[in-house]
This record gives sequence, structure tokens and C-alpha cells, in this order.
Amino acid sequence: MSESPYRRLEKRFERLLLLHDAAAVLHWDWATMMPRGGAQARSDQLAALKAVQHGILTDPETGDLLQAAGAEGGLDAWPAANLREMRRLWVHATALTEDLVHALSKAQSACETAWRTARAESDFASVLGHLETLLALVREVAAAKSGTLGVSPYDALLDEYEPDGRSDEIDAVFRELEDFLPQFLGEVMEHQAREPAAAAPEGPFPVDRQRALAVRLMEALGFDFDHGRLDVSLHPFCGGTVDDVRITTRYDESDFTSSLMGVLHETGHALYERALPAAWRGQPVGLARGMGLHESQSLLIEMQVCRSQGFLTFAAPLMAEAFGAAGPAWETDNLYRLYTRVAPSLIRVDADEVTYPAHVIVRYRLETAMITGDLRAADLPGAWNDAMGDLLGLTPDNDADGCLQDQHWYDGAWGYFPTYTLGAIAAAQLFDAATKADSAIRPGIARGDFKPLLGWLADNVHSKGSLLSTRDLLVQATGRPLDAGAFKAHLKRRYLS
Amino acid sequence: MSESPYRRLEKRFERLLLLHDAAAVLHWDWATMMPRGGAQARSDQLAALKAVQHGILTDPETGDLLQAAGAEGGLDAWPAANLREMRRLWVHATALTEDLVHALSKAQSACETAWRTARAESDFASVLGHLETLLALVREVAAAKSGTLGVSPYDALLDEYEPDGRSDEIDAVFRELEDFLPQFLGEVMEHQAREPAAAAPEGPFPVDRQRALAVRLMEALGFDFDHGRLDVSLHPFCGGTVDDVRITTRYDESDFTSSLMGVLHETGHALYERALPAAWRGQPVGLARGMGLHESQSLLIEMQVCRSQGFLTFAAPLMAEAFGAAGPAWETDNLYRLYTRVAPSLIRVDADEVTYPAHVIVRYRLETAMITGDLRAADLPGAWNDAMGDLLGLTPDNDADGCLQDQHWYDGAWGYFPTYTLGAIAAAQLFDAATKADSAIRPGIARGDFKPLLGWLADNVHSKGSLLSTRDLLVQATGRPLDAGAFKAHLKRRYLS
Repeated sequence: MSESPYRRLEKRFERLLLLHDAAAVLHWDWATMMPRGGAQARSDQLAALKAVQHGILTDPETGDLLQAAGAEGGLDAWPAANLREMRRLWVHATALTEDLVHALSKAQSACETAWRTARAESDFASVLGHLETLLALVREVAAAKSGTLGVSPYDALLDEYEPDGRSDEIDAVFRELEDFLPQFLGEVMEHQAREPAAAAPEGPFPVDRQRALAVRLMEALGFDFDHGRLDVSLHPFCGGTVDDVRITTRYDESDFTSSLMGVLHETGHALYERALPAAWRGQPVGLARGMGLHESQSLLIEMQVCRSQGFLTFAAPLMAEAFGAAGPAWETDNLYRLYTRVAPSLIRVDADEVTYPAHVIVRYRLETAMITGDLRAADLPGAWNDAMGDLLGLTPDNDADGCLQDQHWYDGAWGYFPTYTLGAIAAAQLFDAATKADSAIRPGIARGDFKPLLGWLADNVHSKGSLLSTRDLLVQATGRPLDAGAFKAHLKRRYLS
Repeated sequence: MSESPYRRLEKRFERLLLLHDAAAVLHWDWATMMPRGGAQARSDQLAALKAVQHGILTDPETGDLLQAAGAEGGLDAWPAANLREMRRLWVHATALTEDLVHALSKAQSACETAWRTARAESDFASVLGHLETLLALVREVAAAKSGTLGVSPYDALLDEYEPDGRSDEIDAVFRELEDFLPQFLGEVMEHQAREPAAAAPEGPFPVDRQRALAVRLMEALGFDFDHGRLDVSLHPFCGGTVDDVRITTRYDESDFTSSLMGVLHETGHALYERALPAAWRGQPVGLARGMGLHESQSLLIEMQVCRSQGFLTFAAPLMAEAFGAAGPAWETDNLYRLYTRVAPSLIRVDADEVTYPAHVIVRYRLETAMITGDLRAADLPGAWNDAMGDLLGLTPDNDADGCLQDQHWYDGAWGYFPTYTLGAIAAAQLFDAATKADSAIRPGIARGDFKPLLGWLADNVHSKGSLLSTRDLLVQATGRPLDAGAFKAHLKRRYLS
């Protein structure tokens, strides 16, 4: 008996995702282990892997099988969702002509390379030509995918990072934040000025002890070192594969707090990956749902859990013990003030929980306007500075601290930025629902028992893979689609009381 | 203008070799970095990569292009050799039916798994059934490839490790050694008994200092850490890719000598890889010639160079300095006696330079007889013990120290063993020719200047890639095909004077 079209697609996508996983390990190696002389060869290896994956997706037989499997019907919920996700990957791969893919790839490399110098020298003019070329191509991509997906050009770009994401929904949630944040920030700064200043523990903090502390807290959170590693890289990330999750950090011997919270953030990503549905390993429906939900899991662990007074009640003695230290700086209350300090700044990656959304909203407004054509690349620096002034009351002195600070656009990634704040908002909404559903979660956190929380997350988020849209998953888990209510309530509770 | 068939083949094989390199990095990661829980997923990733490579080779278009490129003719020496090497890879991939490939792969896994237990429990009977199945399949493989390659079944297996290797030539060289070694070993043992006993330097030798010493000597030999790494694995190897060569070792804190010489051995492999012809990167003709020649480069560095009195004159003070040690055990003469100590034993991987060939010849005799059908798997233990008695005068008490000690056959690798000793013999012949051609080589080694030696090796071996057969390369480099003369002369000089 011959195999069904759907079963043949499963085999095809299993191979595709194995090659994707192979590439993920090579990326991790690039960032952590590779000597610099290996870069060109590695880049060629990754390009070859990408070409093979692209070849599997764009093979006419894949399209035929998708059509046949769709016509056949009769699939249960998981296989049906799997077929839907296969089709999404196929659409993104086949919507573009080979010429456009090639031109885009060349423009990305050229622009990203020029950006490195432009940022170092704060010289926007030197990268503008590359950015204009790249933006024109990305707008072509958006137009092409828009037709196939039946959504607006910007939403077609967004779909790659945030499947089924819609800018009208994002607009509504972000508008709620824009209305709330400026005044709230003023209140927070006043409130903070009345509180005792946070004292920074005094170092040095040797790397091996920082690492041991990080490992201890990762293990407490349930990170399984039989299926993962912790290493060092210039830019921290969570990589590797579901069965071998590799997170990275970088250490500063004069300040352990930033590396530690970074590790706990990446641990949130890792816990999501590890708890994805085992029965759907290696299939598109078994993958994490999207960047927004992924970020919700890292921010739930970092912001909702690990920067809370409860968690620090548990962790403060372990921190002091790790460095053989004692004194007022190591008390829970002080560490809590330290880990919730608010300080508006120009740089997104240094931003605190309260001001971070403003950085994202600025970028989201600008990038949607660039895709519609309302904002030209040449006008970016001025528009950036205006928007930063409006939302944060700060204006950069130079473009390195302004529109040159992030790599995303210069690498061709329009549609990624909003997922950071969608994640922060979803984290608050999910944590709120979790703690309402199970009263054991908060007391557990305060004594280092995360099982109640992780059980709820596994049931309501992790084990769903890509079965549902993010919207449907949130409705099932929290009773409503995404809104900023829980996030605002969380901020008020944490920063004004 | 359309591309020539040859040019299209270059593109196809470039992708093939990039995927091969990607797999090499994943293998390295498996042995050095991967948490144990990642094994199944990694194995699936590697299988997917292998399947894609196999698909590229067995694609009917590859065969058509090979035929068209051959018919076209008119290629210069390097492209012509490249086409020849493409064809070799194609023959090995296409000679077997898919059913046979599948059955072989299953039998290999089953036998290798059973062997792990059988060796641990010294229970040959428990693995015999698997070995019989596997051997029958390997004989089928040999018969199939024999037809296509036009050589004997054993030589068809050998060709995968030692391209164009012929057992009649190996027989002649090995016979020379069999005639020489037993009596010579007796003389060596008598001579050694009259010399002062080698004193082992006293440890402990901290791992970080062993590593620093290894790195220092690797750098002296020209290992480029911008294009390579040194890490730890259970079984030392040289892996990675030409532009990112990764060697491994394991450390014993009570004895630094074995790890250090292992590192220098792998450095010999690495230097070969790094000096392969840059113009032919990513093409079959740009690859190292074969396992025998590869082993000749590691053994040339380890045996001919690093265990010599000259090298130890240079290295002994560095060793003492590395561990902050002094005294008679750290003098050059003592270290030389230590590094050239001969002690017949049952285990190949522990064998010294004098007795190693006997271990290989035993295996070569037995494996050729298994392929012709003259030796049945069931009779292996008895035949093994007889042969060890004849050649080394030692008989194992159990099969774990006998025919179960090596993984090769249980993993389906018949035709690999002779390359170890072909390498040792070629190393002696090449080093003899090099030092005769350039009188600066030996004095250079004694003061840590390896440029003259490496220049000769680059010109005469490394830069040739796979342009020539091993035989032609040796004739060009040393004036004659492989014979045991230089190896015997080297042994006499080192062990009897």
C-alpha cells in the first residue's frame, strides 16, 4: 500500500527540520567555539544547508503533496495543524522568485557589513545607500508574500516571526501602552526617588563562581544538563535543538547581576523548547509557536519570576553564599531594588522593564511606516529622534545611540521588533492566569519550588507546540486574547508600591 | 552560454563536500561538547546529512554529467584528477543497491551495539551472530564494488580508505616486516635491558599545565589556532574541517607523556589538512590522499620527529618548565628512553613503534581471509590467538584482550587496518627523503625550527591533495614506491644504537 500524501510530507519535513537542527548546532558553534579563521568556511556550510532546505521546500513535489493532502482531508487536529504549518513554511519559501532571493541575500550581507562600520563611526550616511537598496527589496518581498498570504505587506513580513500576527491587533495593544507609559514612568521615577537607593554588591565576582551560581539556579528552575549546556558568547542567546538546548551568557567580573538575569532569561526560552510535545518532535507543529510567545516564556521567567521579591527571598542567600559575601547589599530588599531599578536610557538592550516597551514601540512605528512607504530610509534618523523624544523624553546625540544601534533592519529583519513587547505583555497575562489558577505557584517560587508554575506552563503553553495560533492559545490559557491589562497591573504593583 | 558538464559537477561536489564538512563539525561536537541526552537527535541529524549527500551522488544526473565530462575530455591535470576522484566517490555510492545499503546500516548498528557489551564481558559468543550477518553483507558489498572497480573484493573495500591500494603490494611490504620484526624485537629487548631504565617524571601534572605545554609545542610546530582548536574527548582524534581543524586529547594527571605525544600525533594530521591545496578547497581533488598517507603525516611528526633525540633536546627544557620541575627524570636522555621504550603487549592502541606493525599484520591477515572466505567469523578467536603467538609471542587470556579489542570489524570496517602500518612505513620513507634533500631539517628540529621540514612536506605531500595516487606521490617524493627499507633502517638506528 502506498503512503498517503500527508505521511510523505511528514517524512519530507522531518528531514527538513533535521537539517535545520544541524544548522542550529553549527550556529551555536560559530558563536561559542569557532576560531575566527573558520568563519568563511562555516558561512559556506550554512549556505549549503540552507540551499538544501530551500530545495526540499520548493521541490514541485512538495507543492503537489500539500495540495493532495489538503484535498484528501480527514486529518485529526494535530496532523491538520501540522499540514497548516507545513504550508506556511512552503508559502514563505515559494513566494519569492530565485532572483529576488539572491538579490536579497546579497543586499543583506552588504548592508550588514556596512552597518558594522557605520555604527562604530556613527555615520548613517555611509550605510544609507545599502539600507535603501535592502528596504526596496524587502518591500518587494512583502508585496509578494502579501498576495499569497492574503494579508497586508507588513503583516506578511511579521508572519515569519509571529505567525498569524496582525498589526491592527498590535496597534491596539501598543496604543494602550503609549497612553499609559509616559505618565506612569514619571510616577515611577518619583516613587523610586523616595525609596532607599539600591546598593551594588562589591566585586570582583570570579567567573567560575558566577557560573556555578547560574548553574545552581538553572537547575533549580528545572534546566536539564543532560539535554543542554551553558557557555559563553559575545551576544547571549538560546540555541541548539530541542534535545540539546544551549544557552550562552557573558560574564563581567565587576557585576554579576546582569549575566545572572540574562542566564535566567535564556533558561525561560530553554524550558519552553524542552517541554515542546515529544510526540511531534521533528514536525512543524511540534515547534515553538512564534517569537512573541517564545519571548513571553523567557520574560515570564526573568521578569515575572526572577526579578520578584519572592524569588529573591529564595535566591539572595544563594547569591551571597556563591561569592562568600555578606552585608546589607546582599539582603533581599536591596537586591530587589537593584533588580527593579528604572533608568530611562537611549539603548534598548540596556533598558529596564518599564522603559523597554517605548524602545520597541518607536521601532514598530518606524518600521511599519518604512514598509508602507510613508517613511523613507533617508528620513530615519530624524524620525527616530523625534519618536524617542515623544516616548522617552530622550534624544540621542548621535545615530550610533539612535537608529544605528540595532542590527535588525540592516540585516533585513522588518517585522521582528514588536515580538519583544508582545512577549512582555503575554508573560504578564500568562503569569497572572497561572497564579490565579494555582495558588501554590507564588509560595513555591519563594522557596525555590518551580514545579507548580512549570506544570501550568507545560499544560497551557509548552505542550501545545504550534497546534494553536498564539491568539487561540492565549484565549484557552488566560480566557481572553492579548491585552495590556495584566502587564499594566504588574508594573503598577511592582514599581509604585 | 551553458556551463560545461565538468563545471556543473564542480558545483555539485562543492555542495556535497560542504555538507560533509558540516557533518564533521557535528561529529566533533558529539565527541567533545554534546550532553549525552543529545545523542539520538544528533544521530538523526547526521543520518539526514548522509542521506542528502548520498542523494546528490546517486542522482542520475550526477552519473550523466560524469559520463559527459569524461567524453568531453581536454581537461588539465588537476581537473582531470578531480573528475577521477568524483567518479571514485560516485562508484562507491552507486555500486550498492538501496536494500543492501539499508541492511548494512542496520547490521552495523546492531553489531556495534552488541560488541560494546561483548567486549565489556569478554563474551565473543554473544556477538558472533551479529558479526556473521555483518560479514556476509560486507562480502556482498565487496563483490559488488569489485565488479565496478575491477579489483579483488578485498581491494574494493580497501579502496574506500586507501584509494588504489592493492593487497599484493601490501603483502610484499608486510612480508618484509614479518621476516624482520620477530628477531629484531628480541635484539631490541636485549639492548634495552642493558641500558639504564627510563625514569618516569613524578606528577601530579595539572591539566591546565599539560594543556599549556601542548599548545606551546603545537604552536612551535606551526598549528594555527586561528584555524583550529585543542579540546578533550574520550578517544583522541583530528576532526573539523580544513579551515577549522579540531584536535582532541585526554589528560591523565599522573602521566603527561602519553597525552602530549597524542597531541603531537594529531598535530601531524592537522598540518596535513591545513596545507592542502587552497585552490582546490571544496573539491574532491583537494582532499587528503587517503588514510595511509594521512597516518604517515601524523606518524612522521610523532615518531620520526617528536620521539627523536633531536626534538627532545628542544622540548625537554620546555616540559620541565611547564611543570616547574627539575632533576634527572627531566633530562633529554631519560625522556628519550621513556619515549622509545619497547614493551610487547596484547593491546594495539598501547603498542610502541616496534611492536605496532605486528598488531596490524595480525589483523590484516585475518581480515583478508574473512573476505576471501578462508576464515569464518566463528573461527576468529582461535585464529587471532595463533597469529598473536606467532608474531608477538603473546597469547591473550580472553577475547576482550584479543579479537574483541578493536571496534573496526564490528562496525563493518574491513580494509582499514593496514593503513596504520602503511602510514608508519611511508613516514619513515618520506622523512628519510626529506632529511636527505635538505640538511637543515634535522638541526632545525633540535632547536625547535620546523620550517625546513614543513616546507618539504608542503611541497612534496600536502600541496598535492589527491592529484596523484599514493604510489605516484611516493615515487615523486622519495624516488621509489613504498618499501620497508627506510622503516627498518630507522628502527635499527633508534632501537639498537
